[in-house]
Amino acid sequence: MKSDTPKVLVIHGPNLNLLGKRETDIYGCRSLDEINKDIISLASELGLNVSTKQLNGEGDIVELIQQGDYEALIINPAAYTHTSIAIRDAIAAIGKPAVEVHLSNIYRREEFRRKSFITEVSAGQICGFGPDSYLLALRAIKSIL
Amino acid sequence: MKSDTPKVLVIHGPNLNLLGKRETDIYGCRSLDEINKDIISLASELGLNVSTKQLNGEGDIVELIQQGDYEALIINPAAYTHTSIAIRDAIAAIGKPAVEVHLSNIYRREEFRRKSFITEVSAGQICGFGPDSYLLALRAIKSIL
Amino acid sequence: MKSDTPKVLVIHGPNLNLLGKRETDIYGCRSLDEINKDIISLASELGLNVSTKQLNGEGDIVELIQQGDYEALIINPAAYTHTSIAIRDAIAAIGKPAVEVHLSNIYRREEFRRKSFITEVSAGQICGFGPDSYLLALRAIKSIL
Amino acid sequence: MKSDTPKVLVIHGPNLNLLGKRETDIYGCRSLDEINKDIISLASELGLNVSTKQLNGEGDIVELIQQGDYEALIINPAAYTHTSIAIRDAIAAIGKPAVEVHLSNIYRREEFRRKSFITEVSAGQICGFGPDSYLLALRAIKSIL
Amino acid sequence: MKSDTPKVLVIHGPNLNLLGKRETDIYGCRSLDEINKDIISLASELGLNVSTKQLNGEGDIVELIQQGDYEALIINPAAYTHTSIAIRDAIAAIGKPAVEVHLSNIYRREEFRRKSFITEVSAGQICGFGPDSYLLALRAIKSIL
Amino acid sequence: MKSDTPKVLVIHGPNLNLLGKRETDIYGCRSLDEINKDIISLASELGLNVSTKQLNGEGDIVELIQQGDYEALIINPAAYTHTSIAIRDAIAAIGKPAVEVHLSNIYRREEFRRKSFITEVSAGQICGFGPDSYLLALRAIKSIL
Amino acid sequence: MKSDTPKVLVIHGPNLNLLGKRETDIYGCRSLDEINKDIISLASELGLNVSTKQLNGEGDIVELIQQGDYEALIINPAAYTHTSIAIRDAIAAIGKPAVEVHLSNIYRREEFRRKSFITEVSAGQICGFGPDSYLLALRAIKSIL
Amino acid sequence: MKSDTPKVLVIHGPNLNLLGKRETDIYGCRSLDEINKDIISLASELGLNVSTKQLNGEGDIVELIQQGDYEALIINPAAYTHTSIAIRDAIAAIGKPAVEVHLSNIYRREEFRRKSFITEVSAGQICGFGPDSYLLALRAIKSIL
Amino acid sequence: MKSDTPKVLVIHGPNLNLLGKRETDIYGCRSLDEINKDIISLASELGLNVSTKQLNGEGDIVELIQQGDYEALIINPAAYTHTSIAIRDAIAAIGKPAVEVHLSNIYRREEFRRKSFITEVSAGQICGFGPDSYLLALRAIKSIL
Amino acid sequence: MKSDTPKVLVIHGPNLNLLGKRETDIYGCRSLDEINKDIISLASELGLNVSTKQLNGEGDIVELIQQGDYEALIINPAAYTHTSIAIRDAIAAIGKPAVEVHLSNIYRREEFRRKSFITEVSAGQICGFGPDSYLLALRAIKSIL
Amino acid sequence: MKSDTPKVLVIHGPNLNLLGKRETDIYGCRSLDEINKDIISLASELGLNVSTKQLNGEGDIVELIQQGDYEALIINPAAYTHTSIAIRDAIAAIGKPAVEVHLSNIYRREEFRRKSFITEVSAGQICGFGPDSYLLALRAIKSIL
Amino acid sequence: MKSDTPKVLVIHGPNLNLLGKRETDIYGCRSLDEINKDIISLASELGLNVSTKQLNGEGDIVELIQQGDYEALIINPAAYTHTSIAIRDAIAAIGKPAVEVHLSNIYRREEFRRKSFITEVSAGQICGFGPDSYLLALRAIKSIL
Repeated sequence: MKSDTPKVLVIHGPNLNLLGKRETDIYGCRSLDEINKDIISLASELGLNVSTKQLNGEGDIVELIQQGDYEALIINPAAYTHTSIAIRDAIAAIGKPAVEVHLSNIYRREEFRRKSFITEVSAGQICGFGPDSYLLALRAIKSIL
Repeated sequence: MKSDTPKVLVIHGPNLNLLGKRETDIYGCRSLDEINKDIISLASELGLNVSTKQLNGEGDIVELIQQGDYEALIINPAAYTHTSIAIRDAIAAIGKPAVEVHLSNIYRREEFRRKSFITEVSAGQICGFGPDSYLLALRAIKSIL
Repeated sequence: MKSDTPKVLVIHGPNLNLLGKRETDIYGCRSLDEINKDIISLASELGLNVSTKQLNGEGDIVELIQQGDYEALIINPAAYTHTSIAIRDAIAAIGKPAVEVHLSNIYRREEFRRKSFITEVSAGQICGFGPDSYLLALRAIKSIL
Repeated sequence: MKSDTPKVLVIHGPNLNLLGKRETDIYGCRSLDEINKDIISLASELGLNVSTKQLNGEGDIVELIQQGDYEALIINPAAYTHTSIAIRDAIAAIGKPAVEVHLSNIYRREEFRRKSFITEVSAGQICGFGPDSYLLALRAIKSIL
Repeated sequence: MKSDTPKVLVIHGPNLNLLGKRETDIYGCRSLDEINKDIISLASELGLNVSTKQLNGEGDIVELIQQGDYEALIINPAAYTHTSIAIRDAIAAIGKPAVEVHLSNIYRREEFRRKSFITEVSAGQICGFGPDSYLLALRAIKSIL
Repeated sequence: MKSDTPKVLVIHGPNLNLLGKRETDIYGCRSLDEINKDIISLASELGLNVSTKQLNGEGDIVELIQQGDYEALIINPAAYTHTSIAIRDAIAAIGKPAVEVHLSNIYRREEFRRKSFITEVSAGQICGFGPDSYLLALRAIKSIL
Repeated sequence: MKSDTPKVLVIHGPNLNLLGKRETDIYGCRSLDEINKDIISLASELGLNVSTKQLNGEGDIVELIQQGDYEALIINPAAYTHTSIAIRDAIAAIGKPAVEVHLSNIYRREEFRRKSFITEVSAGQICGFGPDSYLLALRAIKSIL
Repeated sequence: MKSDTPKVLVIHGPNLNLLGKRETDIYGCRSLDEINKDIISLASELGLNVSTKQLNGEGDIVELIQQGDYEALIINPAAYTHTSIAIRDAIAAIGKPAVEVHLSNIYRREEFRRKSFITEVSAGQICGFGPDSYLLALRAIKSIL
Repeated sequence: MKSDTPKVLVIHGPNLNLLGKRETDIYGCRSLDEINKDIISLASELGLNVSTKQLNGEGDIVELIQQGDYEALIINPAAYTHTSIAIRDAIAAIGKPAVEVHLSNIYRREEFRRKSFITEVSAGQICGFGPDSYLLALRAIKSIL
Repeated sequence: MKSDTPKVLVIHGPNLNLLGKRETDIYGCRSLDEINKDIISLASELGLNVSTKQLNGEGDIVELIQQGDYEALIINPAAYTHTSIAIRDAIAAIGKPAVEVHLSNIYRREEFRRKSFITEVSAGQICGFGPDSYLLALRAIKSIL
Repeated sequence: MKSDTPKVLVIHGPNLNLLGKRETDIYGCRSLDEINKDIISLASELGLNVSTKQLNGEGDIVELIQQGDYEALIINPAAYTHTSIAIRDAIAAIGKPAVEVHLSNIYRREEFRRKSFITEVSAGQICGFGPDSYLLALRAIKSIL
Repeated sequence: MKSDTPKVLVIHGPNLNLLGKRETDIYGCRSLDEINKDIISLASELGLNVSTKQLNGEGDIVELIQQGDYEALIINPAAYTHTSIAIRDAIAAIGKPAVEVHLSNIYRREEFRRKSFITEVSAGQICGFGPDSYLLALRAIKSIL
């Protein structure tokens, strides 16, 4: 891939490393590795230079966002969606376009999952399409860039 | 287009006929006709047979959903997102996969726009990407079908 | 039926035209036509002159209520139960005795279905008995008249 | 009455022994005895074997429900409608079909009367028709059995 | 009236066609026709070209507002005051000055009537003066124009 | 005492039999017997014929209130103040003047003690004066009668 | 002006003496003196005998309302709109018709400005028309008297 | 009266100077002067040296409380009951025993009258007995002192 | 068992007499008698003198707690957990250490079961372990004593 | 002090005249005079021309703020912090930099003290440092000016 | 200990390393080391292979839970009880039986400590027994396994 | 600096490392290094031995607070202000005087920033003065020590 293609950072939040191994009835049976391969494959097709990272710590996610050597951010904040003002503030501070992604439709789950601190600092939100949510987000980023 | 391609119904809710004519700072300057052309063009490319309709009446939208001669539904319920249980019940009754779409990021707007009766009966939700929200929804439908 | 029997108007709200065709596990497998036949049959037995109508539009229901050429009203407002002040105001304005009917027990369903704008202008409410709810309402009307 | 007719237990909750003697503008002027006679008369006509009981104590009502030698329950929980989880649990534990009855339309009264713990364990609810509420409940039970 | 006088659209919401016929203790005994005559008479005196319309359907009101061939809007949204985001969005989209009118003082009535979706997109609100509310609104519009 | 003096019933609610024995730092060290003696003594002085009763069961209190052979009621509902609609309904049904009494100032205690179902059916409330609350209530009753 | 014209008292609440000097982007650039002149001029034209007064103290406004030598009251309670039960009680006690006036549309401002203690004791409310709000109120008073 | 009798200050809050002149159906037809005479008469009988004062201003009441040359305080804060933290703080700062008094039963009136800032700093509360509420408060103070 | 072993009172609240007979999928298939045997057996092993009692009436439970001839209390208040301030007050008045026990995990059930009036007066709470909850409570009591 | 030093107005709200005399465990034992001396002394050192004033009336504070002959405002609104929109509006209207000061940490006290109407129109807030809060505010003002 | 005994992981949440050193009046004077020794000792007695770990970071706890080489989990989430959806999700994903433990009775403390995200994914909860809470949890785990 | 000067620990919470680089319109253009220099300079002047640290992880902040080798703490918890009970508990456990600092006035920002878990365990709070907030906190600490 050419070095001048736009860089996109994909962050997978806490517990997403368990994808495909646990609760497959809810989250599907694809592993995070397989999902990342699909992301990278589509990114290549769209002319985007994507890097992916899974992190369980709130502070670690804040620091990764702060590094800022990317043109756009795709983030599935998982549990931190509903509790982390720190991640929200990091996204707002960096000021790069961000797309919030969820595998499941968070509005059909427990009441506490229906509120997102992240949406208010994102360009948009895509939820409910399983691993496809990431691929749609890549296309959205492509348009935004 | 071949008659055996899957049919997708795209419903534009109240006031969306004014797109591109009013409040262009919020909703962009593309008219609904232009957006519909893009939708039809991508549908064709994806092998989907799409029909689009803009309606201002809640009961009219309910009846269009009920007719049911489609494989999937893309709906931007606009103002009815937040107030219409009737549209929700129609979608639930028909039982076809539905994708909820919003041009703007409804979670960054007034408090009363942050609640959706429709999300709970949709496969997923896409919001915040302007007219691209519809195109992403088409791709999501393609995967679902 | 003699022309001097009291007239009763039965209104079926939005999506009830789908009865018996969709979600039969929740709403039962009797069609609206079959239910109407049972209503008319019992009305005849009770000496009531009943007419029935299904409508999906809020404004259409308001206007049907306004016509007022009936002695009593039986209404299953369906989704509008929880959102329509306009239907409430129409019932209050006409001032004829009204009985609110629901097929399912709305208090065992989603939180948003537990509030009724209509009950406060009705003589009484009957819910949870499937199509029998209408028949019980007819008997209640018979006593009231 | 034949011994193999289905047994129906009718429970009148606290203060209903005062019916016809107090607050007749709200609750009407029929005494509980007169109402019970009408209930028994209609039950006989419908082929049901009914027994009635008025109780003021929450625990006493719980114990009567627990005895369980009936096929169905009609209960006017009166004030306990809004406060008694114990009665709710007893009905749920016994698992016989129950119909909740109110003389007045509880949704047109004080705010604290609009919530029922009992509805969520009942087949259905009938309210607002005065003593006729019981008779309609008997007919509903007849259909259910 | 000269063709170059400013046009003012007056919209009467649901159930207002019953004015003077029903609930005259609350809404007074003047019919909508009589009120419209007074509106037209004062408009003529003020040099305004007024047209009036009563509609019961939410979508119908949305579409009338959208037509937009007027300089200012006077609207009594009646029951839709409290539930219609669609009417709100239509007024906001058209961007003409609007005055919200109510016959009764909505803040002295039921709790659910004390919230207006329309006020937030109106220049101002006048309520509580019976049919005079419309005449005061005409004068307010005259000043604004 | 003469038989034609007005009868006043004083009801002490749950746990008040423990007065003077438990939690004396909160409720003082006078026993219920001593308090009753003071009540009877003042009643005699005021020309009132008082009888007192302590009960722990909600249904028992309801039934005592229902007996109704008194001209006025003084009630310290204790814990039932905050939870019993049944006692409230009994007082309302009997329709005799009632005075609600509390030893402690319930508005300075836990949040759940600040709401009284009983006050809304009482002539007035006296709280915070320890056993004197009863004596003040007797004087209030004397004035009312 | 003749001594037998009806007297109208106009009260300007706290901080309104700063009109035209501060925050002119919100409240306009007319001073209170200029507004008072317009009020007096229109009153004269309508045959009303108006007196105006600006006061910053809640108790002072209460006492002015109590003096009661007027037939009707126009009041812009400003900040006290949202906090003063004392002013509300004074208006209710005097029992003269009152019109509540606001320069700005209080329903488009901070949440805490959307509640009025005064509206519930006023004949009606006019808000959002700047100084014209007072003039419309005068006309409303003229009709009421 | 001897100079060494305990001093009791009685404060009547805003609008109580209108007693007996306005809203006599709610507050009774005794004037404040008549009530004060009864208070002084009973105080004399009980050996208390009472002084009474009616004030409409919140700050004025605060300052009267601060003067502190009394052994106990009886206060009917009227409208300030529900809004004044300043009066509350003054009572707490002075630290003399206080009894809160209301003519009407504030818990049977509007929702906003059911909360008192004053009760939490008072020894006790007496409400609902009309002018007798003051006399009962005097007796309560007598016991406390 | 020796007479000087500490006495522990175990109270089973309403409907627990149905254990093992009803809703065995939720509450397990052990009867209350079997559970009591296990309790007594472990108590003996731990050197505790235990007595058990099941009661359905709130007042009856209050009175049993009041008798107070025990060193510690284990209570499963069942439905009264969420509604009974009277039981709470009885436990607080007696002042013996109490352990609150639930068979099921009340925090995974209906919203109204997540609040306990009893916990605030208990030493601790054990829930979710079926009949073992009682046995763990016995061990906890052993440590406390 | 030179006449061209910036003027700072320090307002002490209701009941602060009692400092050092009452509730010294909460507010400390320094009198308001002593605190004022420290304020004046530090102001002199910082080159600020300070004047101080204690007022108990809400309207009086509004008027003092309105006079406006100062460059900056330090205000301890005491009880009015939580209730006065009038003071808030006065500060906003004048538009001078203001610092809100509290002796105690208001966020560790009663719930109703945790909301400030004043903070939203202040540059900043300092609370919890006793009389030092004022001195820190002076330094903050020095930096702002 | 034999290698085939079931493994139990005990996680101590944030600040629990300070046990016995700080706030001993609340949490007791036993150190975490001492508590761990008791846990290990009882585990050995019960035939369980226990390992313990104290962690202050939310992400670190998530990762420890994810490792999953244990048959059951005992967790005292401390402050994260009330804020961490990430820990909740980790427990749910792994799907091993978990017991939630608290030293203090969290329902007798600040309001914000009364809600647990963890309880809803635990088998049960034990709180209020100090270090014994852990030992009771071990016994509960023993029964579950 | 002498080794016996009191040690003060200054903690900068998440995202504060971006100060001066991002969102300079909100947070000003001074970098964290510059701010730290000013802090150290003033500390030296006041005779305080200060050390500063910026951390993004909640657990890391908890551990730094626990080390406890300081006499006082100044903390700007940034986003964790509103979400971290763990930091609150650490401050409470260590028991050293703490001052909470914010650059911006958190009460003029989003609703979710108006609640602080930290204030309740701090001596006081200073907010809204930009980097000066830290310097004022140092002076406050100086007085406290």
